Amino acid sequence: MPATVDLNADLGEGFAVWQLGDDEAMLGVVTSANLACGFHAGDPALLLRTCRAAADSGVRVGAQVSYRDLAGFGRRFIDVEAEELTADVIYQIGALQAIAHAAGAAVSYVKPHGALYNTIVHHTEQAAAVAAAVHAVDPTLPVLGLSGSAFFAEATQLGLRTVAEAFADRAYQPDGTLVSRREPGAVLHDPAEIADRVLTMVGEGRVRAVDGSTIDVSVESVCVHGDSPGAVQIARAVRQRLTAAGVQLQAFS
Amino acid sequence: MPATVDLNADLGEGFAVWQLGDDEAMLGVVTSANLACGFHAGDPALLLRTCRAAADSGVRVGAQVSYRDLAGFGRRFIDVEAEELTADVIYQIGALQAIAHAAGAAVSYVKPHGALYNTIVHHTEQAAAVAAAVHAVDPTLPVLGLSGSAFFAEATQLGLRTVAEAFADRAYQPDGTLVSRREPGAVLHDPAEIADRVLTMVGEGRVRAVDGSTIDVSVESVCVHGDSPGAVQIARAVRQRLTAAGVQLQAFS
Amino acid sequence: MPATVDLNADLGEGFAVWQLGDDEAMLGVVTSANLACGFHAGDPALLLRTCRAAADSGVRVGAQVSYRDLAGFGRRFIDVEAEELTADVIYQIGALQAIAHAAGAAVSYVKPHGALYNTIVHHTEQAAAVAAAVHAVDPTLPVLGLSGSAFFAEATQLGLRTVAEAFADRAYQPDGTLVSRREPGAVLHDPAEIADRVLTMVGEGRVRAVDGSTIDVSVESVCVHGDSPGAVQIARAVRQRLTAAGVQLQAFS
Amino acid sequence: MPATVDLNADLGEGFAVWQLGDDEAMLGVVTSANLACGFHAGDPALLLRTCRAAADSGVRVGAQVSYRDLAGFGRRFIDVEAEELTADVIYQIGALQAIAHAAGAAVSYVKPHGALYNTIVHHTEQAAAVAAAVHAVDPTLPVLGLSGSAFFAEATQLGLRTVAEAFADRAYQPDGTLVSRREPGAVLHDPAEIADRVLTMVGEGRVRAVDGSTIDVSVESVCVHGDSPGAVQIARAVRQRLTAAGVQLQAFS
Repeated sequence: MPATVDLNADLGEGFAVWQLGDDEAMLGVVTSANLACGFHAGDPALLLRTCRAAADSGVRVGAQVSYRDLAGFGRRFIDVEAEELTADVIYQIGALQAIAHAAGAAVSYVKPHGALYNTIVHHTEQAAAVAAAVHAVDPTLPVLGLSGSAFFAEATQLGLRTVAEAFADRAYQPDGTLVSRREPGAVLHDPAEIADRVLTMVGEGRVRAVDGSTIDVSVESVCVHGDSPGAVQIARAVRQRLTAAGVQLQAFS
Repeated sequence: MPATVDLNADLGEGFAVWQLGDDEAMLGVVTSANLACGFHAGDPALLLRTCRAAADSGVRVGAQVSYRDLAGFGRRFIDVEAEELTADVIYQIGALQAIAHAAGAAVSYVKPHGALYNTIVHHTEQAAAVAAAVHAVDPTLPVLGLSGSAFFAEATQLGLRTVAEAFADRAYQPDGTLVSRREPGAVLHDPAEIADRVLTMVGEGRVRAVDGSTIDVSVESVCVHGDSPGAVQIARAVRQRLTAAGVQLQAFS
Repeated sequence: MPATVDLNADLGEGFAVWQLGDDEAMLGVVTSANLACGFHAGDPALLLRTCRAAADSGVRVGAQVSYRDLAGFGRRFIDVEAEELTADVIYQIGALQAIAHAAGAAVSYVKPHGALYNTIVHHTEQAAAVAAAVHAVDPTLPVLGLSGSAFFAEATQLGLRTVAEAFADRAYQPDGTLVSRREPGAVLHDPAEIADRVLTMVGEGRVRAVDGSTIDVSVESVCVHGDSPGAVQIARAVRQRLTAAGVQLQAFS
Repeated sequence: MPATVDLNADLGEGFAVWQLGDDEAMLGVVTSANLACGFHAGDPALLLRTCRAAADSGVRVGAQVSYRDLAGFGRRFIDVEAEELTADVIYQIGALQAIAHAAGAAVSYVKPHGALYNTIVHHTEQAAAVAAAVHAVDPTLPVLGLSGSAFFAEATQLGLRTVAEAFADRAYQPDGTLVSRREPGAVLHDPAEIADRVLTMVGEGRVRAVDGSTIDVSVESVCVHGDSPGAVQIARAVRQRLTAAGVQLQAFS
């Protein structure tokens, strides 16, 4: 059993009058908050308030960068060219850096969001574009992502620190990628089952895939969700199970 | 006659496939480039290219912050609340800072754009919101604006360095504010007349207002435009007239 | 006591993954649904679903047109020129007309939203621009608004049918306009008090203003809200009180 | 040699202060104007002005519908789900219908733009979504597109009239699809060569593909561009060559 693991969740995903998730509750659960940067969600005033709340809670802030797609919440693949994607990602990180700075916080890592996250598991050109963006902003910024992904390969080549994450409530393909949200069974719902599953992932580095096979999974950080009352309950169950098993929850270094 | 004056212009004001102005030509004329930050113009890829070109030309870069109004090019007053405006401005400056950094440049000052510029000449609450945003990002960042404006009063109160600018091709009201673009005669067009006018502003600190009266004007920087072939020609005429009169063109410090 | 009154509410005000209000519940309460048209809220897929649901519920559909301001939910005044505002409103009505047609419904009236609604109570130029837009689309389309407003004056001049509405849960100024949402006490919260108030407005044509004075109010339609569980409860209370008093709820003709 | 052929071009592709192409010149060349609908270009005020000019010139108006992608000018594939795409297309057609109506014109056909155009040559689900949208708005509206495309198959199945178009200045693959703009040689530039090529396409129903082979091509309408001075010159050369050969330019019926 590892001594520590990071717990991350997406925050700041409202926009204008619209809210998504219970950010306040989640700041009491996670150790790292992936903040939207305005391209899929997150207006600047919301991000500023959320950065302040994260700083007050001692939760570390990361930039959750996305395709420019507010109408699709960043969940749709966009065939954007590498040069544009790099610039879009630099822009988003910088915007959040200034917001975080104004709130007494700092952007400590970068995590791609939604369709971009899934795409750069295998799309080499876009993976390289995102890695190049992070490197251009700050070569010491770690990136959160999927172990074995094209993104991690590109990031490693540029000397970026990669942090492998596992998903608490998502089904896995036998190849270690996530089952698409468009497929049935992509998202798990039972808190106890999910907490058990996370403990196995963190403790043994293994998870049961959707076809019943057991696969290896690297975990420095566990991703939980907070976009519904049930999701917050799940996140708390995961935290409690890990803590009860002696795993210390702590931001990765 | 002052030894030096700064020459600034708006650059990076295209978006997607759309271009505005001849940025390349203007980089050979000005000493400071006010770069759009995405809220009224300026997609990230364009901004990245423009920052690189500015760095290559030895032209200093500033952040031209705006209301969030792409459809109105930032030229329409928006009654945004102070908290939101502050966050919007922080976001824009940060985005451009990262872009500039990736291009080997740096954001050296902040200048409000369009309707925001005109509004905070007198709108105390929005003026304070913009000043607070600059201060929150970096209290050593100078702000470009109109001498005597509410914006300068608020900026000064926060300890920000203010840099007074004059407009080469815009008509002035007797109170030192600009004639609105919606009014006839708001924009001057004759290169020779404009160059003379600028020389008088820089050399004598005076300009003729739209009612024929002569008013005092503070000038540490002169704003020229580059959004048409005629505008570039005017900018060059201004540069030549100043240089011929022994004024050295140099970014303000 | 009038035989009938219309009950209207804002629907379709989500966007992308974001929801606002309980549209399904409200379709069981109101007789007219003001649907967002995409400029302050309402992505096309949501609008299509909502139009279908309205058609299924026998609720009439109207176009709730707005400034182009997704980030401000249409709640901020924008100093847009008349020509642009007219075109923006035509565009929105047409978009919703096609959506409604595809859903087996039809746009039966137009109601301005948020800051546009409040602005054209007194802003003659924008009021005329909105009235001209409705007239250009279809001169038989009624407009919903505030009795005595500049908007109604302009609409009447163009021969448009005006339908005066009262607000169930909003405080009134002595001059018959609404207290701004930025002011304390602008929104009422007690269901019983609100239901009483509406009955007085509908039955006697009077309402108590924020300063305690009693003012006349024209009511062909009553606006209720549905953007929170409490709001739905209020809307139901209003409906029950009116029905119990023998007022028939029915779309205006 | 056919008695008549239609000549179409993309118009109304500016946005806010940005212009693209010389719409005024093109209205003197073409018989059908594909107007942007706001999702890749075209603010409502521009569209209203352009519809008026088209009506004055006796040029027929069509709706050029796109992915929602202003920042990419609709040139990037977006993996949008069918239900959303259908609603997006209905929304765009309706918006332009109202604008056209207000200008004394009418939307007479629908043509997909950019990446959407190219995608639905083969992407059956999105092709069906677009065809369903047109059908839902008005089953008598013809669609412009590529002969043999999935889009035409889906449109035909719904009983829509399909109008096959050929591209004057674009290189063809041996399978009759266009060479991607990202490839070298995708766009032809010599006016005389292009005019010859169009005459062969219209007169003989054949064109030389990029690999030198000759392929069949169906042509009821020829697409020309007008987004540069050179493009306008090409469009005029095409018109002159066709007219000189006795082909009458006339909107398809």
